Amino acid sequence: MADHAISPTRAEDYPEWYQQVVKAADLAEQSPVRGCMVIKPLGYAMWERMQAILDRMFKETGHQNAYFPLFIPLSYLEKEAKHVAGFAKECAVVTHHRLELSPEGKLIPTGKLEEPLIVRPTSETIIGAMFARWVQSWRDLPLLINQWANVVRWEMRPRVFLRTTEFLWQEGHTAHATSTEAVEETLRMLDVYATFAERDLAMPVIRGPKPSAERFPGAVDTYSIEAMMQDGKALQAGTSHFLGQNFAHAQEIKFASPSGTEEYCWTTSWGVSTRLIGAVIMTHSDDDGLVLPPRIAPTHVVLIPIHRTPEEKEAVLAACRRIESDLAEARYGGEPIRVRTDARDIRGGEKTWQHVKQGVPLRVEIGPRDLAAGTVSVMRRDRGPKERSSVPIDRFAATAADFLGEIQQGLFDRAREFRDRRSVRLESLEALQEFFGADGEGKGEAKGGAKGGFAHVHVADDPAVTEALDPLKVTVRCVPMEGDDEPGTCVITGQPVSRRSVLARSY
Amino acid sequence: MADHAISPTRAEDYPEWYQQVVKAADLAEQSPVRGCMVIKPLGYAMWERMQAILDRMFKETGHQNAYFPLFIPLSYLEKEAKHVAGFAKECAVVTHHRLELSPEGKLIPTGKLEEPLIVRPTSETIIGAMFARWVQSWRDLPLLINQWANVVRWEMRPRVFLRTTEFLWQEGHTAHATSTEAVEETLRMLDVYATFAERDLAMPVIRGPKPSAERFPGAVDTYSIEAMMQDGKALQAGTSHFLGQNFAHAQEIKFASPSGTEEYCWTTSWGVSTRLIGAVIMTHSDDDGLVLPPRIAPTHVVLIPIHRTPEEKEAVLAACRRIESDLAEARYGGEPIRVRTDARDIRGGEKTWQHVKQGVPLRVEIGPRDLAAGTVSVMRRDRGPKERSSVPIDRFAATAADFLGEIQQGLFDRAREFRDRRSVRLESLEALQEFFGADGEGKGEAKGGAKGGFAHVHVADDPAVTEALDPLKVTVRCVPMEGDDEPGTCVITGQPVSRRSVLARSY
Repeated sequence: MADHAISPTRAEDYPEWYQQVVKAADLAEQSPVRGCMVIKPLGYAMWERMQAILDRMFKETGHQNAYFPLFIPLSYLEKEAKHVAGFAKECAVVTHHRLELSPEGKLIPTGKLEEPLIVRPTSETIIGAMFARWVQSWRDLPLLINQWANVVRWEMRPRVFLRTTEFLWQEGHTAHATSTEAVEETLRMLDVYATFAERDLAMPVIRGPKPSAERFPGAVDTYSIEAMMQDGKALQAGTSHFLGQNFAHAQEIKFASPSGTEEYCWTTSWGVSTRLIGAVIMTHSDDDGLVLPPRIAPTHVVLIPIHRTPEEKEAVLAACRRIESDLAEARYGGEPIRVRTDARDIRGGEKTWQHVKQGVPLRVEIGPRDLAAGTVSVMRRDRGPKERSSVPIDRFAATAADFLGEIQQGLFDRAREFRDRRSVRLESLEALQEFFGADGEGKGEAKGGAKGGFAHVHVADDPAVTEALDPLKVTVRCVPMEGDDEPGTCVITGQPVSRRSVLARSY
Repeated sequence: MADHAISPTRAEDYPEWYQQVVKAADLAEQSPVRGCMVIKPLGYAMWERMQAILDRMFKETGHQNAYFPLFIPLSYLEKEAKHVAGFAKECAVVTHHRLELSPEGKLIPTGKLEEPLIVRPTSETIIGAMFARWVQSWRDLPLLINQWANVVRWEMRPRVFLRTTEFLWQEGHTAHATSTEAVEETLRMLDVYATFAERDLAMPVIRGPKPSAERFPGAVDTYSIEAMMQDGKALQAGTSHFLGQNFAHAQEIKFASPSGTEEYCWTTSWGVSTRLIGAVIMTHSDDDGLVLPPRIAPTHVVLIPIHRTPEEKEAVLAACRRIESDLAEARYGGEPIRVRTDARDIRGGEKTWQHVKQGVPLRVEIGPRDLAAGTVSVMRRDRGPKERSSVPIDRFAATAADFLGEIQQGLFDRAREFRDRRSVRLESLEALQEFFGADGEGKGEAKGGAKGGFAHVHVADDPAVTEALDPLKVTVRCVPMEGDDEPGTCVITGQPVSRRSVLARSY
């Protein structure tokens, strides 16, 4: 075993470190289908935890789940001018609906469709078409729908979880009688995402509107939550769009108002995806592999029995069963504590390192010496891999939730401190060039991303800003809605602006 | 209001009755995409209930969820000869991966793929390709994976839930070291499905192997559970396939045995789909609409406040809140009782009929007269719509679970009695012709399906049988594994056979 379980380390080569963490934790792998990943059981279990929490939050805010077609007729995409321009690329196009088997055993596509179908890259158009049928009167509003689904956006440079041709997500779609209500909904769901990111993923985020160049195609306003990864880059972790009446006009989503007039609805959409798995990995993991925030960890506690003789084995496994049964009553974050005993017949070291690399928050070793002393050895994943504390065996169940809570909070604090250390307020383009490295690769920036971070800067929402930042490979991520801020003038154009924006390189 | 909420009735026109039940309960509707349905919130909530229960059962039997690509390269499908023959049709074929926007605002598919991709109709081939990578040694076995996903099989005659171009399902895929273990797995999952169908869906099923003509393409044996709908037709509600080494050979899924030899795995696959929603509708619903088995009902109890004056409203709503809070502690089927108060400001009759048509198991009306008497009026969905019983208000929470249990059991018993009444043992082709109607439409068979049912008959697994039954539009559904049965001779070919098969028309 090298000094660290993952090679290269973050400092040596951050992008490659990420790939190796994914591999060592057995979260996912590339499939034979270009750009499409296979999400393996541990990766999928992380997604299931996220789904369960988000789904509850969506239902608590009045939304209902439904399911809409995978396929969208080409003509639907053409209806909203900006939407079509934004999505007129990178789509999987279905042109045939039959296969015929040639005498040589080859399959030949036949049954050409009159109108090609695209595999949904997002569902505003098809869901809008249904909303137009469902909404008649103001009594039908608000219409609050969510869909859990797969979507496809053809990716030329795929990267597991972060950018894949097919990914899993949820997309909320709502229709309202007034602009005010739709804006409230947009911000409510942004808050749901921010709460989820910070409370459950232990990932501090900055929330705010994006500049117009970064808006969802067809949206009036796009809001995002932005997180900082350990290379200082930003990752957009969720978006919430106020669509105004753009899609309602394009799809004729109309309602009769109480006074009998016919009005167009105001709509929103919002989504998060399996990209969040990548965000969690890059926020918390270390040079020994995955580190999981307890609230989304598929396993909270792994018990590792240690024994040589059959007698020892029997005693140790009995102790494991006792701890499991003690834990059956314990709760963390409102849910049962998820514990399992790893009784596989493999080397103890190999076993331990596997759980380190898979990010299990608490490893508990139980051997004959522990039993004799009436203790267990507890190792926290947020501490060094060799660091252990001894806990009385009959006290462990009572303290497990406290350990998990400390780890969850500790991960959040650590990520926030990291972000704060890598955040600056800058007042000129020259300072930006210095901060990010003028050549666009980061002056002296190691592969580990030792330079750069979040620059809080006064910039206008203006194409000149995008253009000036382009050589730096930096974009305006969002205009933070929280925290004190002072008005100033755009460091590029000199226009007056009311708040600073966050500028960063991004995923 | 007519005599019945649904028109036509089952007896008048069963297929149309089904469509009207779906519509009246607002479960789903056709989308603008040919053959694809939109699953609306109540329909989707039924699916979520089914998913939750099945997912727990899969995990309890050692399976883990994962996710595999939507797309399958054409060449993968070609690998297993029988599989390709069975699926070489009805597939959505992706041929391009880009769209370009013409100056006229039209989208033109570009970026032709070197190898077309098909949208998965089922995933044996792509999952098998991954299994081949994952399995090295006997220590990696058994590999027990499940996927929740959408699949596409182009349908020329779609029918909501029963036969749609896109549908949602789960597909289990497992690999084993021995034939015995793989057969055990196949039968274990068949049992899981049968238990789920009977316990949770209150839908009696017959389990057994299918004749070779009805096997999954590429399987050695296909087992199914078969349920009888209220028109006497069979609906295949789930299948479990023993794939032998066919797919392992086609995809090189091999392992090193303990003795060091290289062996091919034995694999299985098994699935149920949103078709089950259609099965539940057709098994239990009546001429007033949907009837939901409590265990999968998204709402168990709806409280309907009745009031005229503001004072009455206040008192009645307070009573509803009290009942909701009393019910918070109650459990049915190991889960909290799902209750909601329908306080919408619409006519009481309209409200009540909506819940009837949506199949809520218990409707509870609470008005000023009830309050004065200290009672509530309880109406069971499995009884006539006007039939009500009076229950002391402070006793309702304690008895709600009993009501639900009675309804669940009652629905199962009713469905089983119906099936038994429509099941016969027959001893000749002439008797079959008489039972099903020789002209293939059912002699004198009303649209409501007054004739036919399940015929238990000795038939051989022989093409001659398929051919003889074809004019009757009858197929061999399966060879029931349970119940006493005696050997006999095939009524078509005269061959000796060890057990009777179930013959029926089917969905």
